[in-house]
Amino acid sequence: MTFPAPLTGVVPPVCTPLTPEGEVDVPSLLRLVDHLLGGGVDALFVLGSSSEAAYLTDRQRRQVVESVVGHVGGQHPVLAGVIDMTTPRVLDHVESVTAAGADAVVVTAPYYTRTHPAEIARHFRLIAAASPVPVVAYDIPVAVHTKLPAELVLELAADGTLAGLKDSSGDLAGFREVVTGARALSGFSVLTGSELLVDAALALGAHGAVPGLANVDPHGYVRLDRSCRARDWDRARVEQDRLCALFHLVGAGDPARMGGSSSALGAFKAALHLRGIIDCPATAEPQVPLSPEEVRRVGKFLAAAGLL
Amino acid sequence: MTFPAPLTGVVPPVCTPLTPEGEVDVPSLLRLVDHLLGGGVDALFVLGSSSEAAYLTDRQRRQVVESVVGHVGGQHPVLAGVIDMTTPRVLDHVESVTAAGADAVVVTAPYYTRTHPAEIARHFRLIAAASPVPVVAYDIPVAVHTKLPAELVLELAADGTLAGLKDSSGDLAGFREVVTGARALSGFSVLTGSELLVDAALALGAHGAVPGLANVDPHGYVRLDRSCRARDWDRARVEQDRLCALFHLVGAGDPARMGGSSSALGAFKAALHLRGIIDCPATAEPQVPLSPEEVRRVGKFLAAAGLL
Amino acid sequence: MTFPAPLTGVVPPVCTPLTPEGEVDVPSLLRLVDHLLGGGVDALFVLGSSSEAAYLTDRQRRQVVESVVGHVGGQHPVLAGVIDMTTPRVLDHVESVTAAGADAVVVTAPYYTRTHPAEIARHFRLIAAASPVPVVAYDIPVAVHTKLPAELVLELAADGTLAGLKDSSGDLAGFREVVTGARALSGFSVLTGSELLVDAALALGAHGAVPGLANVDPHGYVRLDRSCRARDWDRARVEQDRLCALFHLVGAGDPARMGGSSSALGAFKAALHLRGIIDCPATAEPQVPLSPEEVRRVGKFLAAAGLL
Amino acid sequence: MTFPAPLTGVVPPVCTPLTPEGEVDVPSLLRLVDHLLGGGVDALFVLGSSSEAAYLTDRQRRQVVESVVGHVGGQHPVLAGVIDMTTPRVLDHVESVTAAGADAVVVTAPYYTRTHPAEIARHFRLIAAASPVPVVAYDIPVAVHTKLPAELVLELAADGTLAGLKDSSGDLAGFREVVTGARALSGFSVLTGSELLVDAALALGAHGAVPGLANVDPHGYVRLDRSCRARDWDRARVEQDRLCALFHLVGAGDPARMGGSSSALGAFKAALHLRGIIDCPATAEPQVPLSPEEVRRVGKFLAAAGLL
Repeated sequence: MTFPAPLTGVVPPVCTPLTPEGEVDVPSLLRLVDHLLGGGVDALFVLGSSSEAAYLTDRQRRQVVESVVGHVGGQHPVLAGVIDMTTPRVLDHVESVTAAGADAVVVTAPYYTRTHPAEIARHFRLIAAASPVPVVAYDIPVAVHTKLPAELVLELAADGTLAGLKDSSGDLAGFREVVTGARALSGFSVLTGSELLVDAALALGAHGAVPGLANVDPHGYVRLDRSCRARDWDRARVEQDRLCALFHLVGAGDPARMGGSSSALGAFKAALHLRGIIDCPATAEPQVPLSPEEVRRVGKFLAAAGLL
Repeated sequence: MTFPAPLTGVVPPVCTPLTPEGEVDVPSLLRLVDHLLGGGVDALFVLGSSSEAAYLTDRQRRQVVESVVGHVGGQHPVLAGVIDMTTPRVLDHVESVTAAGADAVVVTAPYYTRTHPAEIARHFRLIAAASPVPVVAYDIPVAVHTKLPAELVLELAADGTLAGLKDSSGDLAGFREVVTGARALSGFSVLTGSELLVDAALALGAHGAVPGLANVDPHGYVRLDRSCRARDWDRARVEQDRLCALFHLVGAGDPARMGGSSSALGAFKAALHLRGIIDCPATAEPQVPLSPEEVRRVGKFLAAAGLL
Repeated sequence: MTFPAPLTGVVPPVCTPLTPEGEVDVPSLLRLVDHLLGGGVDALFVLGSSSEAAYLTDRQRRQVVESVVGHVGGQHPVLAGVIDMTTPRVLDHVESVTAAGADAVVVTAPYYTRTHPAEIARHFRLIAAASPVPVVAYDIPVAVHTKLPAELVLELAADGTLAGLKDSSGDLAGFREVVTGARALSGFSVLTGSELLVDAALALGAHGAVPGLANVDPHGYVRLDRSCRARDWDRARVEQDRLCALFHLVGAGDPARMGGSSSALGAFKAALHLRGIIDCPATAEPQVPLSPEEVRRVGKFLAAAGLL
Repeated sequence: MTFPAPLTGVVPPVCTPLTPEGEVDVPSLLRLVDHLLGGGVDALFVLGSSSEAAYLTDRQRRQVVESVVGHVGGQHPVLAGVIDMTTPRVLDHVESVTAAGADAVVVTAPYYTRTHPAEIARHFRLIAAASPVPVVAYDIPVAVHTKLPAELVLELAADGTLAGLKDSSGDLAGFREVVTGARALSGFSVLTGSELLVDAALALGAHGAVPGLANVDPHGYVRLDRSCRARDWDRARVEQDRLCALFHLVGAGDPARMGGSSSALGAFKAALHLRGIIDCPATAEPQVPLSPEEVRRVGKFLAAAGLL
């Protein structure tokens, strides 16, 4: 399908359900897609950080894109992450996910290696030149350890390298600078990756949101998005407050026993399992699984949010 | 060949010469290998950070291992990096490089994702369980943004998970703790990744060194290693001082124009090109190439070190 | 005067005008205070980061508090920073600024030393126990290199240790958690230190703002605050957009020649000088002064914002 | 006394014993000084990080310098830290400690504020211009969050601004660059702040060491220094190994309960108390005291090192 310019609304980064053996559980994945589309989301983002893309083999990544694209049948845009360290490796992923039908690719700055704004610009330009589909920049300093400067994003937006930005930096002031600068650029899409500031981001002019928590409660984020579009800020704030409270489930795992990814992704999957959407809450290796007690904690958050 | 226990001596992380089109230049790579072995090095480490492993596609990585292993013909150990973000992806690389003949695999902590010591331990254990060859840990916080705790390395050494450590952390005090703790463990190899502290590392008991600069001057590092083994510390210091002065070539690139990897790897390759060992000094995308003036600066360092 | 519970509105961190010799320029300081109060601000915060508190000697700090308190004459609350590394040193400043008449003290987490949440809590409790006036926590990770956890702030608010929070962390999601948690606590004041997100902060329930840029344009921030209180979000956004554009003046200084404090504080003072409010734009040592060309750049931002 | 050029040997950063009420315990301090001088140390460094300078009030700082200088009576150089954020505040401390008789001042880069190499150079130059005694640079990135570049230190050494460097950065490669560059500068003193790499630092040409652990075992560090000077590297390594094992006492405090300063400084003081040198092991607020069990752990390290 033609990629919307700009892309707007709720675009969940789709979790990747796994079997106990660590393989992609395609039936669960498609049930999750139905759950999200049934909740009213506007597009899907596969192979993002919340999708455990960093943990999926190349074969599994391709399987995810093919399964979701095939299932969605062109009714909604499917964006695919092409998470890798440098230009040549990202280009291989671009070839793979576009062959599998992705409507856009989502690209981070280089990482592992020490980089520089000039190299980041070169990276995006080379990928855009080679990609048959639009390129969305993915600003995620917690993972890649550099921040995309607003000025650079706007320069790459203005010259047509980038079709959009997914901002998971947590820096709403920098995000605002892109939003403001992008007003002059028709078609460029500015999306927040935050779960907690969707109302604030939309109020200052963002086009949409890519919240990992929308896996668990797509209906909530769609209501929130619709209230913002209707400029009913009070109603939006009530919904956002409910989702902020729910988001505390990401802290279910004991930080003495596991890292933040294990806890947050484990909690998302535990919630999807408790809600009956996926068959198995397993996360990929080497993440530490939640204990039964930690899963119970997730259940309590679901119950408090009216989701059980 | 059987992997030495412990591995000792000079083990250069072999640069990967590229063609102007960005493909692996196999004839140049093999000339570089001959240059290194001719200089007296003890083993080869391919697909490390100095090899631009982060920039090579999976196909190119396999090509490098096959070419080098085939050329070396079992006369020297060939270690291969399996640089990737998480356990499932690293396992794919382990399969690939061992099928291509690598004698050991070199593994970092997980990165991109937020991790935890318990997850790092799990990562190494799963890889060691699946690998047909010994596993060497690669401590490189500048790239992966976590430091391997000495205690964890020693625990994984003691239980047979790890066969060695390559320490590129710059933290010689932490390195010393591993060296000291490893005295009780026969066969575990503790290697410094520093170019600048080889004499100090060997003086406190390290088994060897993995210096990127040994691409440019293998004879110098071999002399340094031999002086240390002979406990001729004065002679070692003179050689180390010469190599420290030479190492300043990594700053040849203008930091206003490029990142540290572009400058350092560009300088190594420019030096190899100036010395007539490789055909083309190109680095992989999106690195910024050195300017002619910057290459001249590299040449001056070579001349000062008596290498031109 | 009695400290308001909660403190609301615009509370500028008052710049400290200096003479060319580096002494406090009291007449200019009092003109600046008149300019701010004339602009309609609700309270004054002296000896904050924008006040160059880190650069003022103890004698100068006391001189600032005495001058401002004397001039204001109890008509508006005067908060005073007591910026120092640890409890005993902060307690000395508390004694000094309260003797000089400050209505509240503003306290950061310990710094220079490696700290811990338990020690941060102990620090605030000891200071609150000794202080004759309310204690406001100052969350400024860019300076002290730790972030105050929302949970800790709320715990110290609930037990009466803290009367408020000034959040200069840039983390609006964490700020929101404090705002939400503080709804149950009557009298606790949650203030944003951001120049760029005042509308967003007030929309989600903050009580006020402490923006350094309000030195330059108090009328703008007061209009912004009043629009937010009237829930006229469209008008607020227009004003905030204008102030965001003006804020770019903090980048007037060349980053190749000076640090971020020199540039930002130099620009605030250059603007106050260009506007005729202070006699001399000097910043404290070892900051690098703006060049005439950089000062012209500041002037252009003022002109564009209608302030010249 | 005349400050030695260069200063050499063991220069302990003297702990500051406190009473249970948090006041300087002068009799204990003087017993500690006797213990250190009796152990053969070459000079004393008061008001450093291990002295809890960050926790002492201005009055207490002056009391420390006066007491120690008076007690030492010019028989050994007394260096004094002037730890504060910026030039004007450091200058006040310079005046105070030199009035009290300090033979040199030890100065960090600016902190709290965002700084720049040009500002750091300006800072040292202004202080050197005003100081009646030599200035030693203190490189301690863990506290001030910038690293002094080797090139800058050498520039300031060459022009006479600096008389020496105390390097607590943990970066032995950068330290080596200063040592090598300083060979051409007569009188400049390069000192390591490491407890764990004294043999390595002296082997590569350092003039001396400033190890916090020398409070606990001055005799050990003096033996180590003398072995290095005699170029008896094997004997030096045995002594250094013993001191490395002893240094593990800094981890006596539970990291779930306290920060690194509380644990390390608490352990030094507990050891001095257990050895009968000081009357009370209290550390300054807001540090968390060691528990009796944690103190027992310190005792075991002392026993293992033959110090009880």
